[in-house]
Amino acid sequence: MINKKMLALGQKRSAIRELFEFGRKRKAEIGAENVFDFSIGNPSVPAPEKVTQVMKELLETVDPVQLHGYTSAQGDASVRAAIAAAEEERSGQPVSPDLIYMTCGAAASLTVSLHALVNPGDEVIVLAPYFPEYRVFAEKAGALLVEVPCLPDTFQIDFDALAAAISPRTKALILNSPNNPTGAVIPAADLARLGDLLREKEADCDGEIYLICDEPYRALVYGDVEVPYVPAFYERTLVCYSYSKALSLPGERIGYILVPPTMPNAAEIYAAVCGAGRALGFVCAPALMQYAVAKCGNLTANLSVYEENRRILSEGLADIGYTFTAPDGAFYLFVKALEEDAAAFCEKAKDFELLLVPSDSFGVKGYLRISYCVSTQQIQRALPAFRALYESYQKEN
Amino acid sequence: MINKKMLALGQKRSAIRELFEFGRKRKAEIGAENVFDFSIGNPSVPAPEKVTQVMKELLETVDPVQLHGYTSAQGDASVRAAIAAAEEERSGQPVSPDLIYMTCGAAASLTVSLHALVNPGDEVIVLAPYFPEYRVFAEKAGALLVEVPCLPDTFQIDFDALAAAISPRTKALILNSPNNPTGAVIPAADLARLGDLLREKEADCDGEIYLICDEPYRALVYGDVEVPYVPAFYERTLVCYSYSKALSLPGERIGYILVPPTMPNAAEIYAAVCGAGRALGFVCAPALMQYAVAKCGNLTANLSVYEENRRILSEGLADIGYTFTAPDGAFYLFVKALEEDAAAFCEKAKDFELLLVPSDSFGVKGYLRISYCVSTQQIQRALPAFRALYESYQKEN
Repeated sequence: MINKKMLALGQKRSAIRELFEFGRKRKAEIGAENVFDFSIGNPSVPAPEKVTQVMKELLETVDPVQLHGYTSAQGDASVRAAIAAAEEERSGQPVSPDLIYMTCGAAASLTVSLHALVNPGDEVIVLAPYFPEYRVFAEKAGALLVEVPCLPDTFQIDFDALAAAISPRTKALILNSPNNPTGAVIPAADLARLGDLLREKEADCDGEIYLICDEPYRALVYGDVEVPYVPAFYERTLVCYSYSKALSLPGERIGYILVPPTMPNAAEIYAAVCGAGRALGFVCAPALMQYAVAKCGNLTANLSVYEENRRILSEGLADIGYTFTAPDGAFYLFVKALEEDAAAFCEKAKDFELLLVPSDSFGVKGYLRISYCVSTQQIQRALPAFRALYESYQKEN
Repeated sequence: MINKKMLALGQKRSAIRELFEFGRKRKAEIGAENVFDFSIGNPSVPAPEKVTQVMKELLETVDPVQLHGYTSAQGDASVRAAIAAAEEERSGQPVSPDLIYMTCGAAASLTVSLHALVNPGDEVIVLAPYFPEYRVFAEKAGALLVEVPCLPDTFQIDFDALAAAISPRTKALILNSPNNPTGAVIPAADLARLGDLLREKEADCDGEIYLICDEPYRALVYGDVEVPYVPAFYERTLVCYSYSKALSLPGERIGYILVPPTMPNAAEIYAAVCGAGRALGFVCAPALMQYAVAKCGNLTANLSVYEENRRILSEGLADIGYTFTAPDGAFYLFVKALEEDAAAFCEKAKDFELLLVPSDSFGVKGYLRISYCVSTQQIQRALPAFRALYESYQKEN
């Protein structure tokens, strides 16, 4: 009699969550240092010291009635002006504070965008592998989720497969670059081709196709990799940002949606975003955090730790014999399983105290995700276990 | 092609918001001190000093990775334990931390509860006058909103009207005590009668009827008024709480949903709440605020200011000749308009620089809401304007 879909979502643990709970029990049994938990994408690097300083200053200097009061539903005007300025500097493109909507983090950015755009029965395309909650969010907005596999090994867009999947019912495509779980970053040339494809398909089917860019890992890239500004390639783009990963503030739930001024009917799209936020119960984004990120948005946590972790893990696993594509961003390594059934492989890994997420819930088979936002020591100590796991497969064959 | 309902919600300003914008312009024209803005329910009393202290201590003493990290989706376990203990002390009834779900404030508490319970086509009853966003929230969850008028003058439950409105499709009744906009508090005797009625109707129609108690004003009561613990009168009750008004933290978006252990199938209801929160994009409630309210939940802001405002405003308006029922809680005075059309009356009030919200958007005609969460000086300076407005109506007749 209550809502069975919501009940099922509450009762059914995600694979990641299941593994996390297993890890908690196992650590209690044999000691935390003996369990190599690579399940969760929770930043292991602290927020920049300046974020703490700024919050303390705000608490010490601003009238609490103002500091903790309602901001306007779309976010405080001065906060949106600061973010617009930062986005303009990043992109070299015009950005309006009046088209920025502050959100309670990346998940809220996505649900608000989807509810603003989707009508029941519309299709939303995701490129597999993809973050599993995309399905939950899209279906709750009334959409049918359509999975399009990426190219094997590179995990870049398979344009033939994508072209074949776009239908007259396609309302949106969710793009996640840098990607969770693969770390792939979509290069400018592919974005240009994607823009061309979407425009062509729009003309064919007389509808509108929106690109929803989920970019929480935008600031986490390695070497000279750059994450292009997607609206420059396709105008009908919504950019969903969150400070969770870049500033190591995942629990504080703060991010934004950017509607580029070049978007056709930008004011209407923005109004629908405001309407969806209102209907879903987002009154305003947390006020103190709004003011804090406005002053710290240009910072990132000390990412050299992730860079070091990536290097040690990649070199160590390659040396053992594992295969993977080096990630350009985020903090995940997506590794080929040593047997066809990734879930079975990850079960076996538990015998070596390795907690790895099988790729099935990301919409592809045969891989596992290693979150390397952990201590560097954990990676170093885990390498012998990875070797023993590998060797156990060699013996079998 | 985008979602027209969300677009309409974003484009159509609420009456309150419209008035607020008018006030902003008018203040710029003639000076803020000359405009008597009673439109908004934004607490005017600062958060208790201890809240600021606790937040600073947390920032100074807790590892930022832990302080700003994800809590579990339902909220940090120690935070839920502290809230459960406080709820047990308040109610004298058993409360389980594992049936408390931390939310991003009152609006989120309501949308999550509604999405957990409602199936498309269900009916949700509200008692008019009611907070206008209840309609937005209930309709977004797929429900049909059914308005049941309260008794005139007292704004207490009209049991005959309510009994007539309950149908086999009734899934929930939203109760808001202390009430926005009337300040009415539902007494224990009426809650007992309500429990009896709902149980009787459930038996008749072979369905389940849930009581959703929206209680952000629970700590704001006057004299010896007490707000009863509703689950003691009706088991199938969800309690939605927010710290916005009691701790003057409306912008920080922090509250919770309590499923009482006496609720039949409490674990299922709680799972559906978790599922709805997940699907709507609420990953966890803001972490720093969770830890802060766990340490400050037993405090309230200095409510003597609201008590003083209520006294001065009530005495002043009664002396002039206005009629109203004295509010037992919250910070609103619901006053009879001097003509049938409350909107026309509030338009006329603008000539006297008085910004008052007509009752139409609360689902009743002929009244206006005065938010007295303003400075006491504003009330004192506004009384001559209220007198002049009153006299302008005497002259006409």
